[in-house]
Amino acid sequence: MIKSRAAVAFAPNQPLQIVEVDVAPPKAGEVLVRIVATGVCHTDAYTLSGEDSEGVFPCILGHEGGGIVEAVGEGVTSLAVGDHVIPLYTAECRTCKFCTSGKTNLCQAVRATQGKGLMPDGTSRFSYNGEPIYHYMGCSTFSEYTVLPEISLAKIPKEAPLEKVCLLGCGVTTGIGAVLNTAKVEEGTTVAIFGLGGIGLAAIIGAKMAKAGRIIAIDINPAKFAIARELGATDCVNPKDFAKPIQEVIVEMTDGGVDYSFECVGNVQLMRAALECCHKGWGESTIIGVAPAGAEISTRPFQLVTGRVWRGSAFGGVKGRTELPSYVEKAQKGEIPLDTFITHNLPLDEINTAFDLMHEGKSIRTVIHF
Amino acid sequence: MIKSRAAVAFAPNQPLQIVEVDVAPPKAGEVLVRIVATGVCHTDAYTLSGEDSEGVFPCILGHEGGGIVEAVGEGVTSLAVGDHVIPLYTAECRTCKFCTSGKTNLCQAVRATQGKGLMPDGTSRFSYNGEPIYHYMGCSTFSEYTVLPEISLAKIPKEAPLEKVCLLGCGVTTGIGAVLNTAKVEEGTTVAIFGLGGIGLAAIIGAKMAKAGRIIAIDINPAKFAIARELGATDCVNPKDFAKPIQEVIVEMTDGGVDYSFECVGNVQLMRAALECCHKGWGESTIIGVAPAGAEISTRPFQLVTGRVWRGSAFGGVKGRTELPSYVEKAQKGEIPLDTFITHNLPLDEINTAFDLMHEGKSIRTVIHF
Repeated sequence: MIKSRAAVAFAPNQPLQIVEVDVAPPKAGEVLVRIVATGVCHTDAYTLSGEDSEGVFPCILGHEGGGIVEAVGEGVTSLAVGDHVIPLYTAECRTCKFCTSGKTNLCQAVRATQGKGLMPDGTSRFSYNGEPIYHYMGCSTFSEYTVLPEISLAKIPKEAPLEKVCLLGCGVTTGIGAVLNTAKVEEGTTVAIFGLGGIGLAAIIGAKMAKAGRIIAIDINPAKFAIARELGATDCVNPKDFAKPIQEVIVEMTDGGVDYSFECVGNVQLMRAALECCHKGWGESTIIGVAPAGAEISTRPFQLVTGRVWRGSAFGGVKGRTELPSYVEKAQKGEIPLDTFITHNLPLDEINTAFDLMHEGKSIRTVIHF
Repeated sequence: MIKSRAAVAFAPNQPLQIVEVDVAPPKAGEVLVRIVATGVCHTDAYTLSGEDSEGVFPCILGHEGGGIVEAVGEGVTSLAVGDHVIPLYTAECRTCKFCTSGKTNLCQAVRATQGKGLMPDGTSRFSYNGEPIYHYMGCSTFSEYTVLPEISLAKIPKEAPLEKVCLLGCGVTTGIGAVLNTAKVEEGTTVAIFGLGGIGLAAIIGAKMAKAGRIIAIDINPAKFAIARELGATDCVNPKDFAKPIQEVIVEMTDGGVDYSFECVGNVQLMRAALECCHKGWGESTIIGVAPAGAEISTRPFQLVTGRVWRGSAFGGVKGRTELPSYVEKAQKGEIPLDTFITHNLPLDEINTAFDLMHEGKSIRTVIHF
């Protein structure tokens, strides 16, 4: 047992509390990681709100971290003490039906227990005053020390600054990967991106990497437009500037619709708009945002029968252990400008401020330093 | 002006009337065709019901025909008198944005006027007692003589029996093409087909051609199962035999869901079931059926975010002038068993009986002979 400073969510809709929790040593196939820095993502806030049907309390949130291996459990072979790692909420076991399909990154090896806030053996490594605390998304990066399955850690070069590349653990990779891996955007095409939070901005970077000919950035907060343009957006559109539905505006702007669209908010009406602004015959819309529990998307089937395609993306279709090192490399070369995303840096003690900044739309990402 | 026997829909929801209409000669770029035989399809019945928002009356229905070129208008170069043809409700101009995209068969060259029941110049070639009668789907194959744009006719070998290959003008090609062109079903995969009318049965043939490993045929009318098995279905499922939703039944039968599913009915609840019975991570569902006006599909976006894909298909993604001759060839070789689809043959005078047989579920296809 070691002591660890952690921001604990004791109950939904309450501020996180910074306390000292106990962390049990890694069991077989598990790894103890010292988190150096972590981003704060909308998904953490979503679960904290109590809306997430998988949310269990008390728990330690956080899933966008960077850290250093502190100890390894029995049988761990791919990682050693001192390795730099990014925790993965989508594991990569390389042996399950999903990993070997060649068609998806959605490894299911630890999915069932992860969804219950537990390690693969059905127990927690965290406790406080002798009572167990749940894990979160298999990561719990809001703790200085955390335990993960070996298959849930991507090993990255030691030269990469953990306080920056931690953002590759979720939002940035999700946005870029959705464009490159899921939609497979082609050179010269027209792309619409709905929502300019961290994921939407990352999707702009992805579209730029794919050499899209036109990148239309859409948000009701025009304060986001400057950064969107800086990253590569060619057009910025505020739906509030128009009386007609945004899908009609985009269809008119593009002589029939876009080739690819991305919903990066989690709003089911916007998901519909993103589909319906696609070009007849071939336009493809990818849902990235996480909708509230129970919310449903809908459209007239004619939209699909006339050639549009509706798909979704989780963690950008990226296989973490295999592909994340290449994302780190791209960030190191400056191809992924992580600095643009980091609008704030705060110590762990001030993590609740990071949530406030996010809710107020003032931050893209706040990085928490331990 | 020539005289032509035709089954005219004078008003919605009324039996067709066999009368002698006047047919004006083909204008520039148009072709006069003598229809030898035509199928009767659910889409004809849908428009006749008055539910079709594009339906205009009086009109001459029918869009699944086979005929012989009787005369050509000025400038027609790809067809000559005596050529055998299949009318196309999806034209192929080979020059519009859609045709040249390489991504869709949805040529838009004549779409606007076709949707209004008119020829590309905005007028009709049909009249009765001096009053114009509207065209239908650009085809109007329920008339012994009909006029079509040159780009709406697929030239086929003269050896092919028109009273059989007429079925390739819609349902059979739609079902096979959706499997081969739209979904691109791969060898060894598991396929679910919802609805065993003409399109669903054709989809089974397509899945067999694609060497699918398992073909699950689903219908609430078990009388369709014998023919489904004959065509290649490996499993037949009647949703009425189960208390739980059909998507759950299929997911359990297939250890997680199917690789590809096809909705061949036009029922939006069934479209949802077809999507949700797909395998997490990669399952793709294709909507082929035409839903009632205003009906909407819906699902939880999580279905897509976890890797399922929702798409649709019109005329099986087939470019008529370019690809239909190869379908005729396959039928000639016995690879597409058209005889299995033709349960009834009737003269034009008895065309209303063909609609009755279809509504009663007693026919797959009735072929009308002129």
